Amino acid sequence: MVDILNAVGIKAQSSRVYDALTTLKGLSGWWTSDTTGDANVGGVIHFRFGDRGFIDMRVRELAPDGRVAWQVVDGPAAWIGTKVNFELRQDGDFTTVLFKHEGWKDPVEFMHHCSTKWATFLMSLKALIETGKGAAFPNDVHIGKGD
Amino acid sequence: MVDILNAVGIKAQSSRVYDALTTLKGLSGWWTSDTTGDANVGGVIHFRFGDRGFIDMRVRELAPDGRVAWQVVDGPAAWIGTKVNFELRQDGDFTTVLFKHEGWKDPVEFMHHCSTKWATFLMSLKALIETGKGAAFPNDVHIGKGD
Repeated sequence: MVDILNAVGIKAQSSRVYDALTTLKGLSGWWTSDTTGDANVGGVIHFRFGDRGFIDMRVRELAPDGRVAWQVVDGPAAWIGTKVNFELRQDGDFTTVLFKHEGWKDPVEFMHHCSTKWATFLMSLKALIETGKGAAFPNDVHIGKGD
Repeated sequence: MVDILNAVGIKAQSSRVYDALTTLKGLSGWWTSDTTGDANVGGVIHFRFGDRGFIDMRVRELAPDGRVAWQVVDGPAAWIGTKVNFELRQDGDFTTVLFKHEGWKDPVEFMHHCSTKWATFLMSLKALIETGKGAAFPNDVHIGKGD
């Protein structure tokens, strides 16, 4: 098993970051504008990326003091069964977000791509909170061919 | 041992990407403007980031058909002995760059940070080649507190 790790520091209170990770409005501002479903623990959130694909996440854990955990229940084959976790820590006037997408079977080329794409979406989360404007799909940052 | 993986697709011939990874001029355009040393196989390249630190890389392999490999010989403690590899593959009018920073002893918080920071520098490499303007230090993208 191999993991994608990423981190960003966001100039905001952790409660604002937590809201952006745990509400449909927040998620639609930095990941994909087409976000629907049930964002409560045990619910499934539907992330849609037009003809580029979709991901369904079950919410495993929501801890306002700093942890959000999802499990991929549908989406790209390599993602199914993997887990996505966000750990938040207040550091003065910044919130550090430690991100992990864990449980990949193999370090395939798609995993390289997803690692970088997650980084750009975390930068989108940072921009959303710090400036009010994220780069959610379909206005996301393109990192390669056909993306 | 754990690895950082990233990937970008750059709209250019692979020879242009190879040049940006293997010449002091190219490297100074996307990673740090303060790049000196010997970029030949066996040589050591000195990457300097002002008061934010430094990295010395020994060039292990240069294969114009698509592979650049370095070994960290000095820099942050967690980096020493790790290896950095770039694999290039021409896909039509794009070059896919598969990046690996391998051999981390533990998935420490600093590794999360470096993974995201590498992603932003690979986006800088892409911008340098596609637009003529990268985001090398000290004009690099800030991803957190004090960075």
